[in-house]
Amino acid sequence: MRLSLDILSVDRSSDEPMHRQIYDALRRFILDGQIAPHTLLPSTRSLAEDLRVGRNTVIAAYDQLLAEGFIEARTGSGTWVAPIKQARTNTPRTKPGCGARRLSTRGETIVNGPQPPRNAGVINFHPGVPETASFPFSIWSSMLARNSRSRDESLLVFLSYAGHLGLRATISSYISVSRGIDCTPEQVIVVTGAQAALDLVSRVLMDEGDHVWMEEPGYRGAKSAFLAAGANLAPLKVSRRGWNLSDPNLPPPRLIYVTPSCQWPFGTIMRIEERLELLDIAERHSAWIIEDDFDGEYRYRGRPVPALRGLDNANHVVYIGSFGKTLLPALRVGYLIVPPELVEAFDKAVSITGQFAPLLLQATINDFIKQGYFATHLKRMRRLYARRQANFVQLCREHLGEWVTVTENDSGMQLLASFKRPLNDLDVVAAAVKEGLDVQAVSIDYHSTEPEHGLLLGYTSMDERQILRAVLALRAAFMRLDRQ
Amino acid sequence: MRLSLDILSVDRSSDEPMHRQIYDALRRFILDGQIAPHTLLPSTRSLAEDLRVGRNTVIAAYDQLLAEGFIEARTGSGTWVAPIKQARTNTPRTKPGCGARRLSTRGETIVNGPQPPRNAGVINFHPGVPETASFPFSIWSSMLARNSRSRDESLLVFLSYAGHLGLRATISSYISVSRGIDCTPEQVIVVTGAQAALDLVSRVLMDEGDHVWMEEPGYRGAKSAFLAAGANLAPLKVSRRGWNLSDPNLPPPRLIYVTPSCQWPFGTIMRIEERLELLDIAERHSAWIIEDDFDGEYRYRGRPVPALRGLDNANHVVYIGSFGKTLLPALRVGYLIVPPELVEAFDKAVSITGQFAPLLLQATINDFIKQGYFATHLKRMRRLYARRQANFVQLCREHLGEWVTVTENDSGMQLLASFKRPLNDLDVVAAAVKEGLDVQAVSIDYHSTEPEHGLLLGYTSMDERQILRAVLALRAAFMRLDRQ
Repeated sequence: MRLSLDILSVDRSSDEPMHRQIYDALRRFILDGQIAPHTLLPSTRSLAEDLRVGRNTVIAAYDQLLAEGFIEARTGSGTWVAPIKQARTNTPRTKPGCGARRLSTRGETIVNGPQPPRNAGVINFHPGVPETASFPFSIWSSMLARNSRSRDESLLVFLSYAGHLGLRATISSYISVSRGIDCTPEQVIVVTGAQAALDLVSRVLMDEGDHVWMEEPGYRGAKSAFLAAGANLAPLKVSRRGWNLSDPNLPPPRLIYVTPSCQWPFGTIMRIEERLELLDIAERHSAWIIEDDFDGEYRYRGRPVPALRGLDNANHVVYIGSFGKTLLPALRVGYLIVPPELVEAFDKAVSITGQFAPLLLQATINDFIKQGYFATHLKRMRRLYARRQANFVQLCREHLGEWVTVTENDSGMQLLASFKRPLNDLDVVAAAVKEGLDVQAVSIDYHSTEPEHGLLLGYTSMDERQILRAVLALRAAFMRLDRQ
Repeated sequence: MRLSLDILSVDRSSDEPMHRQIYDALRRFILDGQIAPHTLLPSTRSLAEDLRVGRNTVIAAYDQLLAEGFIEARTGSGTWVAPIKQARTNTPRTKPGCGARRLSTRGETIVNGPQPPRNAGVINFHPGVPETASFPFSIWSSMLARNSRSRDESLLVFLSYAGHLGLRATISSYISVSRGIDCTPEQVIVVTGAQAALDLVSRVLMDEGDHVWMEEPGYRGAKSAFLAAGANLAPLKVSRRGWNLSDPNLPPPRLIYVTPSCQWPFGTIMRIEERLELLDIAERHSAWIIEDDFDGEYRYRGRPVPALRGLDNANHVVYIGSFGKTLLPALRVGYLIVPPELVEAFDKAVSITGQFAPLLLQATINDFIKQGYFATHLKRMRRLYARRQANFVQLCREHLGEWVTVTENDSGMQLLASFKRPLNDLDVVAAAVKEGLDVQAVSIDYHSTEPEHGLLLGYTSMDERQILRAVLALRAAFMRLDRQ
């Protein structure tokens, strides 16, 4: 069978090169079946004459088709269309969207688990969002620019999946002073944020079905990571007064997740007695303690409370820290402190999960810390947040006293607002959204027990005017609810 | 019991504030048991007098101890040491390093699986490493600096875990022109590199024990990700001529991993016939095809071959691309193109696994592409790599002809060197290391069948002098082996 030429033409006014036009047309005809398999194509010379194009143009088109297997050249006998079977799938499905079922069972678990609460764009009362207005953007930006111009191999090539060697050393010094943790630079594993750290530990340190003691109420992001890894969650009950470590219903744990510096959502500090008890429990069960130190740097009266990891001479604690709340959330750089014997395992695991942070950012954070800007920024933020908290508590008493009790806290970036009368916090969230306000319900932090209702209010990212506006909007939301 | 004061003293010449010294000393004494539980502490006034410090200094120390639960204040009766039980774990273990056993079974699988080959610092023949010398660092750096100074909320707050909205739109246009893939911006999921993408799909789209067709030989990084997710790998045999899709030993697949643009390690392009057959197989088994397009942009003669995903009207293909080989490897930004019905699932999954790339880098890559620098750079690199390949092949023939055959290839960033005589490629790698050379053995890409031995040589990152030096070092390694 010989190709009828009239279906082929070129458009000389098109931006598309002519060889590309010929390639595209032939490819389409072959895929559609308009040119059947085993058809003999005209020679490049004859097609070039017919189309009035240069012979090289046709050769370029044929070469591309040849490379992709659309046509075959048989020595001495010309160029033929390859024996291509039409794909059954080559036409669009009539019912799109039927693929949702095609997630794996694990995929379904991951997707349907509790989500780390998402910031709706309007920051408002979203907890854990740092002030960015006074971040030293110009210093940061010039450090970044310098590093990004650098052809230094240590910024271009991964020497270690566990992180930039300089940053790891700097973190190990920093963490010794600020958090009372003694570790070598090697024990520091840098990853793409605290969430990645949680995901990583839950994959490397536990198996599907293992018991994980999870604070109840507790941080959803952690819960999601453990559930995604197949954990069997056991509620470790927490109140404003502390951790119920002697609960007889708790099964022998494989992992124990805690936020000892500033419990999420209550803001409680774990007492030394509880800390020592927890280390004993880990020892008895050969369990790992995952210490999520998400707000550890923010203590407004006195000094930050030393990390649990600092008391842990027997290497039961894996510590998780992050720069998301001390620098900028969108940086996505966090770190783990792991026992020496796990360093190699985590380095390997990171090489497979791809949770390693860009070297450029790691190196720049390193410069930022080493040149003292980090300490200065943190000190300023501590003072600023302390003032903002005092002002915020005052405003809540003035304008929201009818509905909620908000108590000061020495630590953290958010305060718990308890309801004075029975209200469903999800109703409050819905009413707040109508006032253009993003607030977080406390009940979402409960997994398996009857939730307390309330709001977790982040106050750190707003200046005085913004916070007043937000408080008044929340007041309007409560009043809206009252009218219903 | 009352505290004997002589164990407490302050050093006025120390940099450490005095309240901190008092806190540290009392904390240590209590933890060590030198001050027993239930001991009555002196009043702040009396201790201040004894130590000759201000009363506020002692109050600050007591407040911190109180906050951490070391001491208790009983109204009207003073301050007491809390009833702290000494932790059994509070002394270092005599046998450190016994914790390696404490990885989970899954952790062991992850850690002991095949590793993505690691760059030893000396780049040399490491495959897949782009040229960085001619990267437009100054433009890149000024774009980064501008974005990092920006207080634009879209760079500070995550609006979508699936990536920066602008970059997703830009990738969807780019991929349409360059790779023949039609997709909406929403279908683009940005992650921290191709390895993260592989890890993510293997967690979301397959369950433990599922059959994954893995190219044999094939890319180790992919293999690691699938094994880490519990895959049951079935070898999809590949030769220089193509993919053995009709192998009767292949079980019904859940996932099929392929590198159709430039097979790793052979460099073969998948023919249209095989592409259509593969889509049919996926349709028959309701399987997912994972198209790893790691070198798709690099074709030196003719145009890049359109991606398999472009033929896939029935949404069986998840496409993986990366900027690591077209921009800079240490950037850690890659992306997936997923079917519309999986967009939400992937967005949620990324929020839990923490594999999202920093917005700052996403926005800057977006600017870089939109302002035309990406296209220009890519075009320059294509020309440069084509020249380098020709030169490299020539040098191999001149200096290595006795040991290996290296054939030109239209695509990719590395070439396969086959041995002319029976050699073990791991021996060659070891001999090369002695010459200071980093080369990669091909046998490591085999998982379950008898490996072919050879070398996979990356030639893109070295200039003429460097490549000559590397070729001569490899020659020295072969001669060293011959003498043994």
